[in-house]
Amino acid sequence: MANVAKKVSWSGRDPRDDEDERAGETTPLLNGTGPGAAGGARQFTPSFLRPGQLSNVDLNEDIRELETELPRPYPNEIPHNEKLLSLKYESLDYDNSENQLFLEEERRINHAAFRTVEIKRWVICAMIGILTGLVACFIDIVVENLAGLKYRVVKDNIDKFTEKGGLSFSLLLWATLNASVVMVGSVIVAFIEPVAAGSGIPQIKCYLNGVKIPHVVRLKTLVIKVCGVILSVVGGLAVGKEGPMIHSGAVIAAGISQGRSTSLKRDFKIFEYFRRDTEKRDFVSAGAAAGVSAAFGAPVGGVLFSLEEGASFWNQFLTWRIFFASMISTFTLNSVLSVYHGNAWDLSSPGLINFGRFDSEKMGYTIQEIPIFIFMGVVGGILGALFNALNYWLTMFRIRYIHRPCLQVIEAMLVAAVTAAVGFVMIYCSRDCQPIQGSSVAYPLQLFCADGEYNSMATAFFNTPEKSVVNLFHDPPGSYNPMTLGMFTLMYFFLACWTYGLTVSAGVFIPSLLIGAAWGRLFGISLSYLTKGSIWADPGKYALMGAAAQLGGIVRMTLSLTVIMMEATGNVTYGFPIMLVLMTAKIVGDYFVEGLYDMHIQLQSVPFLHWEAPVTSHSLTAREVMSTPVTCLRRIERVGTVVDILSDTSSNHNGFPVVESNPNTTQVGLGLPGGCLSRSWLWGLVPPQVFVERANLSLVQRRLKLKDFRDAYPRFPPIQSIHVSQDERECMIDLSEFMNPSPYTVPQEASLPRVFKLFRALGLRHLVVVNNHNEVVGMVTRKDLARYRLGKEGLEELSLAQT
Amino acid sequence: MANVAKKVSWSGRDPRDDEDERAGETTPLLNGTGPGAAGGARQFTPSFLRPGQLSNVDLNEDIRELETELPRPYPNEIPHNEKLLSLKYESLDYDNSENQLFLEEERRINHAAFRTVEIKRWVICAMIGILTGLVACFIDIVVENLAGLKYRVVKDNIDKFTEKGGLSFSLLLWATLNASVVMVGSVIVAFIEPVAAGSGIPQIKCYLNGVKIPHVVRLKTLVIKVCGVILSVVGGLAVGKEGPMIHSGAVIAAGISQGRSTSLKRDFKIFEYFRRDTEKRDFVSAGAAAGVSAAFGAPVGGVLFSLEEGASFWNQFLTWRIFFASMISTFTLNSVLSVYHGNAWDLSSPGLINFGRFDSEKMGYTIQEIPIFIFMGVVGGILGALFNALNYWLTMFRIRYIHRPCLQVIEAMLVAAVTAAVGFVMIYCSRDCQPIQGSSVAYPLQLFCADGEYNSMATAFFNTPEKSVVNLFHDPPGSYNPMTLGMFTLMYFFLACWTYGLTVSAGVFIPSLLIGAAWGRLFGISLSYLTKGSIWADPGKYALMGAAAQLGGIVRMTLSLTVIMMEATGNVTYGFPIMLVLMTAKIVGDYFVEGLYDMHIQLQSVPFLHWEAPVTSHSLTAREVMSTPVTCLRRIERVGTVVDILSDTSSNHNGFPVVESNPNTTQVGLGLPGGCLSRSWLWGLVPPQVFVERANLSLVQRRLKLKDFRDAYPRFPPIQSIHVSQDERECMIDLSEFMNPSPYTVPQEASLPRVFKLFRALGLRHLVVVNNHNEVVGMVTRKDLARYRLGKEGLEELSLAQT
Repeated sequence: MANVAKKVSWSGRDPRDDEDERAGETTPLLNGTGPGAAGGARQFTPSFLRPGQLSNVDLNEDIRELETELPRPYPNEIPHNEKLLSLKYESLDYDNSENQLFLEEERRINHAAFRTVEIKRWVICAMIGILTGLVACFIDIVVENLAGLKYRVVKDNIDKFTEKGGLSFSLLLWATLNASVVMVGSVIVAFIEPVAAGSGIPQIKCYLNGVKIPHVVRLKTLVIKVCGVILSVVGGLAVGKEGPMIHSGAVIAAGISQGRSTSLKRDFKIFEYFRRDTEKRDFVSAGAAAGVSAAFGAPVGGVLFSLEEGASFWNQFLTWRIFFASMISTFTLNSVLSVYHGNAWDLSSPGLINFGRFDSEKMGYTIQEIPIFIFMGVVGGILGALFNALNYWLTMFRIRYIHRPCLQVIEAMLVAAVTAAVGFVMIYCSRDCQPIQGSSVAYPLQLFCADGEYNSMATAFFNTPEKSVVNLFHDPPGSYNPMTLGMFTLMYFFLACWTYGLTVSAGVFIPSLLIGAAWGRLFGISLSYLTKGSIWADPGKYALMGAAAQLGGIVRMTLSLTVIMMEATGNVTYGFPIMLVLMTAKIVGDYFVEGLYDMHIQLQSVPFLHWEAPVTSHSLTAREVMSTPVTCLRRIERVGTVVDILSDTSSNHNGFPVVESNPNTTQVGLGLPGGCLSRSWLWGLVPPQVFVERANLSLVQRRLKLKDFRDAYPRFPPIQSIHVSQDERECMIDLSEFMNPSPYTVPQEASLPRVFKLFRALGLRHLVVVNNHNEVVGMVTRKDLARYRLGKEGLEELSLAQT
Repeated sequence: MANVAKKVSWSGRDPRDDEDERAGETTPLLNGTGPGAAGGARQFTPSFLRPGQLSNVDLNEDIRELETELPRPYPNEIPHNEKLLSLKYESLDYDNSENQLFLEEERRINHAAFRTVEIKRWVICAMIGILTGLVACFIDIVVENLAGLKYRVVKDNIDKFTEKGGLSFSLLLWATLNASVVMVGSVIVAFIEPVAAGSGIPQIKCYLNGVKIPHVVRLKTLVIKVCGVILSVVGGLAVGKEGPMIHSGAVIAAGISQGRSTSLKRDFKIFEYFRRDTEKRDFVSAGAAAGVSAAFGAPVGGVLFSLEEGASFWNQFLTWRIFFASMISTFTLNSVLSVYHGNAWDLSSPGLINFGRFDSEKMGYTIQEIPIFIFMGVVGGILGALFNALNYWLTMFRIRYIHRPCLQVIEAMLVAAVTAAVGFVMIYCSRDCQPIQGSSVAYPLQLFCADGEYNSMATAFFNTPEKSVVNLFHDPPGSYNPMTLGMFTLMYFFLACWTYGLTVSAGVFIPSLLIGAAWGRLFGISLSYLTKGSIWADPGKYALMGAAAQLGGIVRMTLSLTVIMMEATGNVTYGFPIMLVLMTAKIVGDYFVEGLYDMHIQLQSVPFLHWEAPVTSHSLTAREVMSTPVTCLRRIERVGTVVDILSDTSSNHNGFPVVESNPNTTQVGLGLPGGCLSRSWLWGLVPPQVFVERANLSLVQRRLKLKDFRDAYPRFPPIQSIHVSQDERECMIDLSEFMNPSPYTVPQEASLPRVFKLFRALGLRHLVVVNNHNEVVGMVTRKDLARYRLGKEGLEELSLAQT
């Protein structure tokens, strides 16, 4: 594996580049390169051509979307490791292109009209919140009913066969029920919309980070996601329905804010102002936050989740709107569920999962317990790292061997059956009987227990995971046998690990919480034994800390997770130990292996930008980082040239600097595509779609409006679909109307952290690099920045590849 | 008043500029100005000289700090209104200058050393949290004891004189006690450190926004602030001790992170790496958050406060550290106070003020009440606007007539005496007696009530405001007479309004909450009467909503305030109505007049940058906004020139573009200070201190290190203190080591929103504007951007002035 990566890395980059870099590390920045002399002699040398970057980048989204997410037939040749960046992902452009069309519109709009736009934003956020809340309610109610039905059927069956023997029939029934439900859930995901698999959190993280993942915010994805998660949970898999809510919220937000649906092929002709990357991404942040809010009853946690994953530039108004959507979402869920549960307007269930009240009086902690909590954080970090490492190997295995949809469905069914079997065997072998009185068990399974008692192991398996978590938190001391908890933890750990990554819609939050709560409670009970049961009042709080530690160890979220847990427990004073536990788990876990979501993002080779450039990257400058040469255009350009550039799939960017000849220095190869070191001025970047549209629609004559672009957004027609005659090719088009006249630029001496900061803070898609003469010498894109990473031995460079 | 402003506005700006702007509004951006032709003919014309900007800006902080905050002798000539920006405030530079010294250091540091730096950051945040928590404890304990002592003395006195008549002695005693305590508090503020007056929140807002306010983060300020707030609260003023905690936390953070104290003249030689604006501002954010957290037991609210007020670029690691500091702060406070109150490790009082538990079961709200809450938001908005408008007139009056410290002290004493007198008279006139049994009143005053009863009005006045707020929230229905509440609201409203802006350290949070809680409870009781007391269970929740509405109507904070209130009530489900109430109050209040803090910031003419550029400012471009001409330097510069520039107080910026001649176009007046349209390249910005240091210390020979600058930060020696001989003046210095070789630039065609976004997102201090030839044509600073504001009739332009 490592060899493959190594090879790709070397073939992807010319050795001379690496020499330059090493030189840059030892000599000061400006010494080696006199002004002007710097790039001039070197830009045209072929040593700067990076094969990986120049080959075969598709320009149009439609074409790109045809490349589905399905694995390739020869997976062994895909060097799927984390030292690779895929070229297939495009970036979102968070920076508005300030071209003439845009400016004209903005200048036409007066203050009152802007207020209308602002009000529309609020209305959309309210709608996002309401719909997300309703979807969450729908999932919750359907799951509760279907799962209840299933448990009743199985329970009746077990009760029947317990008396007359032949419990293997019950096992068969249970396993078959589970497997068939999961089969349906897996089939719709695998065959209809593979991007709906998993929790969707990695995908949303990528989207908020600025990476376009095809199909991720489509209505079809939402439908499959919602049905899939219901079927997974009802199918008894070790999964939760919370993670997918985040994805669902994001899809709802994207759909509403654009006022149309690609899946339904309907355009409602509303909210057209918001049809651009900037606005859409803002609304998707709100949707993700609303999803978190509905899932955990944690509106503030939702806002912080969106900010932690997505925001680069903090905007007060945007954050306030996100918070509004979150609040509406949890309030909607709360209202509907309270009506559904009969105690109308009680408003005590703000999320899909509620940890129940942790009162300071009953379940308070003392300062002496804090070292114990930190120790639990260490355990959580180690267990989380183990979980992630196991899942990594499993995922690699899946990428290589289980890439056909039918195989994926079979694996999902196998896991469902095994989960049922393991549960059954453990219940069967368990002799942990508890009195039925005073317990809050929904489906008490008597099995071989005496009358008036129930099998304690059965409650853990014979329940939705959410209920099991709350039971572990709040059941009075003595409700669980340590042996039961230990066995349960062990089995559930492996089941959850096996389950994550299956081709079903499912989240990992709840299984993680459940594993943690189980071993946390076990830990609490052990402590109680060790200290003769005197001071350690309630194992419930250890279950909570264990849950936090395990979840933190697996997903490695920090701020938002602390706040989510804090809000879910409804107690501010628990925030401090939860924070310590999560921090410890993250530090310990990071020592071994990355977080689960980051790991999966890396396995997808997504060019994900972290918050800061690697700390030791000050030795790199924009010159070493940038892609070069770039294809430049002239301000007045031949249509043929434009069409050729757009048709040429080897042109390596979606933005082209528009250059103009310098009247003082006229001896230049002006705007030649392929050689952009013209002595020229930098004029602007133009999205290629502009030319296409223009070339298509009677060329120079037709006055394009901003509306044309909005209507086409985000799927512009490919150049291949447009016929351009020879006469038309000779026409000239004026690009000045469409180009951004003031793109951001950096000098080539700027250090990587500086470039990174500008790029990240403004959410750019392209950043033009200029030399001392202000001539375009290269372009920095997301991929160029994402390539540099801090590894164990210092700065690492990932290679780019077509995967 | 308006005339004065108008006049200044016109004299401060040449009419021709305004013409240009109007032209810019109607014609498209690029049409009027051909490439190259743009600035050339115009830059040297004197019409571009703006008198306001060119006259008398002090370059060195020490000189600037000599200009104290004391009002001028002729206040009528200071056009103190909101249409003015002061030139006396400097900006913080959040963008690291990537000069050679900095880069060399960064490249020397390896990965392990960076980890050490990172650990130091965490240690500092922990220390900030602990110290902030301890300071909060100190304030709380001292206030509790001193106030208790005072109330006991007065109560005994009243009890004595109630029997034998002559209650006017009690009034005298009370008033004198209050006035003398407040006198001490006012004297230390007025004579020792005027910047410690008020809550400090406007100052911290400005600091986090990037404006340097002299003395604001000095140790001396902290000491005065802490003593001042104790004395104000003990002196019975209508003030709270919560607001000042935010300022205190900020000072603590600034002090610890720099590892030295200017007030103590001690340098502990630690944390030297953090001696620059970027790092200091980050730590101050953490300190402010820790202050909020300690004040309200709201760690998440604290983080959001810091982000709402300060952050532009959201950084996950920074936010996580801020949260850590907040958590530590509230935990420290909680632990210490729990020990102090005898119930060690109970951890039930996470903040200085706790609203007490609002349980869903007992005090839940129903969906039908939400319109009522929104109506309360409207009332809060109107009352808040009234408060702010009254305070505005009062502040204008104070600026004009009460500008001597002794007058300020007298006013404070007067307010203290009047507060006592009003309280006394109201208690005296009140006939609202309540049974003493079962109530939680600390100092029950019997007065003319029957035995076993106490005067209900007295509890409101005869208590620290924090306790009164909690009583209003949680006292059972019927504890208060509507008349009592009405009178109390009315009187306290005017007292609080009069008090805010006095020369004492005091916050406005608690008085606002108290006013709101009083009328909210009154509102709840009235509702109860109207509906025959059937459905409206508890007036406590109306008190809470009233408090939120009133506070929101006055300060107009949104997200952070919602979260603070949510955390203080400890109930997530209350978040939704609180959010609605705060939103309504803000919308209604904004219709009339600005928020209190923003109003005071404007009255100080601080160049405060909001989150976004005015929406209708797309018609303005960088060319119209920038200051021009700028003083440029050459890469190799004569020492004499540098010294002259630095000595010349009329040079209008603290940063100078370093320009270099273009080898292709040598016919230029290169780097002439005053005329910067040289045909040249932009090279970098240099803080002027570099030259000074260098000129001082044996000129070209001495190799300056980054340490030299860090030791001097932030108070560099003024140029006047350095003797430069004639020989030395003729030496040449090479600026390339110190200049930032890759400053951010914008083309002059960039629109104002684009410039604004770049400036704000990166926290810049200077932004260089270049023309199509990449020649420096101007500079955009904070003042240039802050000048444009959205007024009632569209875009307004503030004038710049020396105040």
